[in-house]
Amino acid sequence: MDVFRVSILGCGSAKPTLRHYPSSQVVDFRGNLFMIDCGEGAQMQFMRMRFKPNRLRHIFISHLHGDHCYGLPGLLSTLGLGGIDGHVAVHLPAEGIRLLKPLVDYSSHDLQVEFLPYEYGRNVIYEDKALTVETVPLRHRLPCVGFVFREKEKLRHINREMVDFHKVPLALLGRIKSGEDYVKPDGTVVPNALLTTDADPSRAYAYISDTLPLKSVVEAVEGADLLYHEATFLGDMQKRAKETYHTTAEEAAHIAAEAGVKRLVIGHFSSRYLDEKPLLEEAQSVFPSTVLAREGLILDV
Amino acid sequence: MDVFRVSILGCGSAKPTLRHYPSSQVVDFRGNLFMIDCGEGAQMQFMRMRFKPNRLRHIFISHLHGDHCYGLPGLLSTLGLGGIDGHVAVHLPAEGIRLLKPLVDYSSHDLQVEFLPYEYGRNVIYEDKALTVETVPLRHRLPCVGFVFREKEKLRHINREMVDFHKVPLALLGRIKSGEDYVKPDGTVVPNALLTTDADPSRAYAYISDTLPLKSVVEAVEGADLLYHEATFLGDMQKRAKETYHTTAEEAAHIAAEAGVKRLVIGHFSSRYLDEKPLLEEAQSVFPSTVLAREGLILDV
Repeated sequence: MDVFRVSILGCGSAKPTLRHYPSSQVVDFRGNLFMIDCGEGAQMQFMRMRFKPNRLRHIFISHLHGDHCYGLPGLLSTLGLGGIDGHVAVHLPAEGIRLLKPLVDYSSHDLQVEFLPYEYGRNVIYEDKALTVETVPLRHRLPCVGFVFREKEKLRHINREMVDFHKVPLALLGRIKSGEDYVKPDGTVVPNALLTTDADPSRAYAYISDTLPLKSVVEAVEGADLLYHEATFLGDMQKRAKETYHTTAEEAAHIAAEAGVKRLVIGHFSSRYLDEKPLLEEAQSVFPSTVLAREGLILDV
Repeated sequence: MDVFRVSILGCGSAKPTLRHYPSSQVVDFRGNLFMIDCGEGAQMQFMRMRFKPNRLRHIFISHLHGDHCYGLPGLLSTLGLGGIDGHVAVHLPAEGIRLLKPLVDYSSHDLQVEFLPYEYGRNVIYEDKALTVETVPLRHRLPCVGFVFREKEKLRHINREMVDFHKVPLALLGRIKSGEDYVKPDGTVVPNALLTTDADPSRAYAYISDTLPLKSVVEAVEGADLLYHEATFLGDMQKRAKETYHTTAEEAAHIAAEAGVKRLVIGHFSSRYLDEKPLLEEAQSVFPSTVLAREGLILDV
């Protein structure tokens, strides 16, 4: 199947530790790289994981807390130094333009950086032939969204034998793959179901950044193949989680279960946890298909 | 002797590598910490070297290239999260306020951050009872200065025997230490030289950031106990060094020799050098008391 892969560059939270980098991930979709969040040091992690800089064309920032965006000036400046004379789009809350653009513009490079503000809400903010990226409104101390990467419906597979048997002209195969029936020169209709088999399923990856646990997220991420959900605290810190607009491991797992996703990866761990195993165990007790994020982890969607 | 110590947090140059952090150092002067430059990741290095955050009250930024200042928002934000309800002064070119203040102000914390713009020139920009910090104008692609940390003249040592012999009242000892003669009640003058011995020498540390090699630097750092000088390139890259307003290892060593400093530490290594030993050898062939900067290196001034 085509590559659709998530790499974790950082999965710590606001207070930095020597065990984690702040939030950043890279989604590799068929060779095109999309970065989600860009905490300080993301460029080092990007380099460490040997990503090709000129494959990165879109960066999505979930919100403007430093641990999600302070790595942006450095990353962009380095991409420019690398002699990329291309174009990078940064999708972020409008306020981020005021905060980050002066700093980014000040460093001299040939890289064209386009800041694309998105509205807080549920909107498709990126689309190409094969993929959409949709924002999911979250509830944090400041405007924050998640992102759902959704593979578009794929073409059906040609049943070579039947196509030959019915003498479907080569030129029509594209339309047959899209689901059209074949009308023979004599007017007979060959239903598409005879000529094709089902397309590969379309996959979805959902990234849920800093937030209180939300029912609306359940709906937005329903059926996703992979869900990343923040799980800053253990269940015994639920009060603290609520005060700081965060989610516990248990709550994240309930969301995964209710949304019927295939797999859950939890991250954004509070610096208080020197060992994240209890977070994993808590989540797995609700939703067994859970893994812990860690720097360098690669997950196929 | 009182602590006067330089710690290297990062000594790479603009293009990041996995071998070096970008520029940042900490000067520990009698328990007070002064940071010089603050490239991305400086806060991680600060943590790694176990510095006490509440000892850091002054940060000096030599110029506004990203590899010297992109770590500032993260460091300040983290200092604030650490529950420091104190005050940090950032000394920087005025332009830096426009670039960095919006981002720093946006992160919520109790830390009071004061931005203190300095003029390009040779000026004392910090002074306390025991120390001055002076800027040294450099020549780089944008306004850039070096910093000289100079211990103030110290008090002379009392010669206890002579002071007792001449029955100098206790109340006058402070003035005697400062160099005054003692006038006896009968009008006889006891020269200070009889009552005291020389003060400990005053030490100086000079940090010379990105620049073409300059004669004026020789004068400004004359006699320093320790000189950090950038040495981005080897001598065979002299043309490239000139084009990019940088210094070669050989040139840095000549400046150290002409200025008669005690020791030289070179840094800001180009990412092209996977091994810095040739830079060291080149500098040592001119000025033997040279060492290579490296992350974690601690030098007593």
